[in-house]
Amino acid sequence: MVKDPLKKIKPEILRISAYHLKPQPCQIKLNQNENPFDVPEFIKVLLAEKILQRSWGRYPDFHATELCRKLAAHTGWIPGGITVGNGSNELLQIVLHLVLERGKKLLLVTPTFALYRIMGLSNAAAVLEVPFEDFSCFPRGGLLEAIDKERPDAMVLCSPNNPTGTLLESDVLREVLELTDGLVVLDQAYHEFSGYHGVDLLHRNPHLIITRTFSKAMAAAGLRIGYLLGHPEVIEQINKVKLPYNINFMTLAAAEALLDNLDCFLEPIQELIRERQRLYNEMSEIQGVEVFPSRANFILFRMKDTARVFTNLRQKGILIRDVSSVRGLENCLRVSVGLPEENLEFLRVLRESVQ
Amino acid sequence: MVKDPLKKIKPEILRISAYHLKPQPCQIKLNQNENPFDVPEFIKVLLAEKILQRSWGRYPDFHATELCRKLAAHTGWIPGGITVGNGSNELLQIVLHLVLERGKKLLLVTPTFALYRIMGLSNAAAVLEVPFEDFSCFPRGGLLEAIDKERPDAMVLCSPNNPTGTLLESDVLREVLELTDGLVVLDQAYHEFSGYHGVDLLHRNPHLIITRTFSKAMAAAGLRIGYLLGHPEVIEQINKVKLPYNINFMTLAAAEALLDNLDCFLEPIQELIRERQRLYNEMSEIQGVEVFPSRANFILFRMKDTARVFTNLRQKGILIRDVSSVRGLENCLRVSVGLPEENLEFLRVLRESVQ
Repeated sequence: MVKDPLKKIKPEILRISAYHLKPQPCQIKLNQNENPFDVPEFIKVLLAEKILQRSWGRYPDFHATELCRKLAAHTGWIPGGITVGNGSNELLQIVLHLVLERGKKLLLVTPTFALYRIMGLSNAAAVLEVPFEDFSCFPRGGLLEAIDKERPDAMVLCSPNNPTGTLLESDVLREVLELTDGLVVLDQAYHEFSGYHGVDLLHRNPHLIITRTFSKAMAAAGLRIGYLLGHPEVIEQINKVKLPYNINFMTLAAAEALLDNLDCFLEPIQELIRERQRLYNEMSEIQGVEVFPSRANFILFRMKDTARVFTNLRQKGILIRDVSSVRGLENCLRVSVGLPEENLEFLRVLRESVQ
Repeated sequence: MVKDPLKKIKPEILRISAYHLKPQPCQIKLNQNENPFDVPEFIKVLLAEKILQRSWGRYPDFHATELCRKLAAHTGWIPGGITVGNGSNELLQIVLHLVLERGKKLLLVTPTFALYRIMGLSNAAAVLEVPFEDFSCFPRGGLLEAIDKERPDAMVLCSPNNPTGTLLESDVLREVLELTDGLVVLDQAYHEFSGYHGVDLLHRNPHLIITRTFSKAMAAAGLRIGYLLGHPEVIEQINKVKLPYNINFMTLAAAEALLDNLDCFLEPIQELIRERQRLYNEMSEIQGVEVFPSRANFILFRMKDTARVFTNLRQKGILIRDVSSVRGLENCLRVSVGLPEENLEFLRVLRESVQ
């Protein structure tokens, strides 16, 4: 008799809609908050040499010791409080898996990055959502009230938040940390564009975990490298569940080369921040467009006829992200900050679209 | 008040001993079942070119479509029934996570690869073990009885089994598939050395899942690439939990290049099989050494004084795996099949050690 392969799968997983992004060819790609500046050529050459020299048949470093040491120097945190993953997503997934199971609670402030919810559901946990009241700041009152009432086992706070661009104020974060005894994950994928790092809070808050990525400011989305800062006791538990040799030798070598050359990324980051400001200012002057201030490398905006505007941009070769089907983001679109000439072209077509 | 960061972590995870392998420098490395032949130089050059040309700032392929198409051609299975991971371990972990939670059961035949048990425990599942009676074949009677009695939700059968080298006979696998309605994962990390592939069984058994790796026969342990063959309905669920963009662009390109040049690996595989046979024959003639037949690229053997023998080999620059502390593997050591001259040197020092 042929067996039903879905019979044993958790019902919460069967009900999840997969995270999906249809690849669409375009001339100007402003849909994934990628860094348009790429990494410098000489770093690529360094890696190409490593790839030619090194035996591919041998396992990579078990502990990524050298990379963690460099990350400690970069972040000002201790090497024993750092671990690395295939993108920060892998590390977020592990942290939530440490804590969540059926009957446990994950708290999110929404709208936010879609994967957190999927990670909660795949562990059969309850996912509780505190909605933003407006996108200029985190909903302090609602958040503290929900923590007090629901006693969540874990929460993920994305700051700056994707896709709203909102920065979590450090005072609010301190209040959250004071009130909860659940794990608090601060996802700082975009922190380099915000000017806030929060590492000081790790010292007195062993239940705080910070995740970061090389995908945005470090222009390495193609490499999938992320890292996590936390208390050494938590890192020890993470390293039990994290698979051995999770990062391959090429990625380790690339990440080390990027960290050795951090200076190269400072000016591109500043330019993206200036471009973000210019985009914000110019978009604010377009009638019928409501623009939300952002501390990241993207901008969320609201307007009528998003479907028509999205398609019009698409037809002119510009791909942005249509987030209007997400609850709380009705009539919203998100645009990544691109190269100056890409942003100009985006502004031109956007203006054209509203006329 | 400083919070206890371990308070919310599952007790089963707190109790796990981390999988750990201390790196030890050596001249002859026979401890991780790596392929000593490396990949051909021209494949490395192909990848180096890709790394120089491609923007690192852009995300990799969402679906690894081209790689799955090539894997379908290679395996004779359908592209919609294939997914790829950072080593087969990532895929094993996801499959078990689909099914396991507190109150569910994972069945293993032991001794086997240590990570399966950790994966079961990290999901707070009960891990049931059926011991090998001897290492020449899987314990058919005990396995069928345990399935009948315990109704496990999932099982992982490693074939050839690490570290015993035992091949699961296809007749026994058929009986297992007939009897259980849990998910059956066949971990075929070493299948290229065994002559058995088992893909035909996927057609009538949608609850069968096969995992494989590029780390052994394909000489790419440093790259961390694995793949999974299963029913498209199961793949759909796996792809919900598997993180988007889990494989970076370099690894994808490397895996495609390896598959395009499969011919290069056929002769090295044959040579490793011949060397395994030679090692087996010569080790069998050493008095006091009990050698177990193997269908993989390693050999398990039992003898007195394993600690002294291991240390003696170590002092002569030869690193093998001391598995003697594992239950069921008392007095056992495992040696990977290396280059002909490495195997000769190993044999020489082993003979010396027992005199």
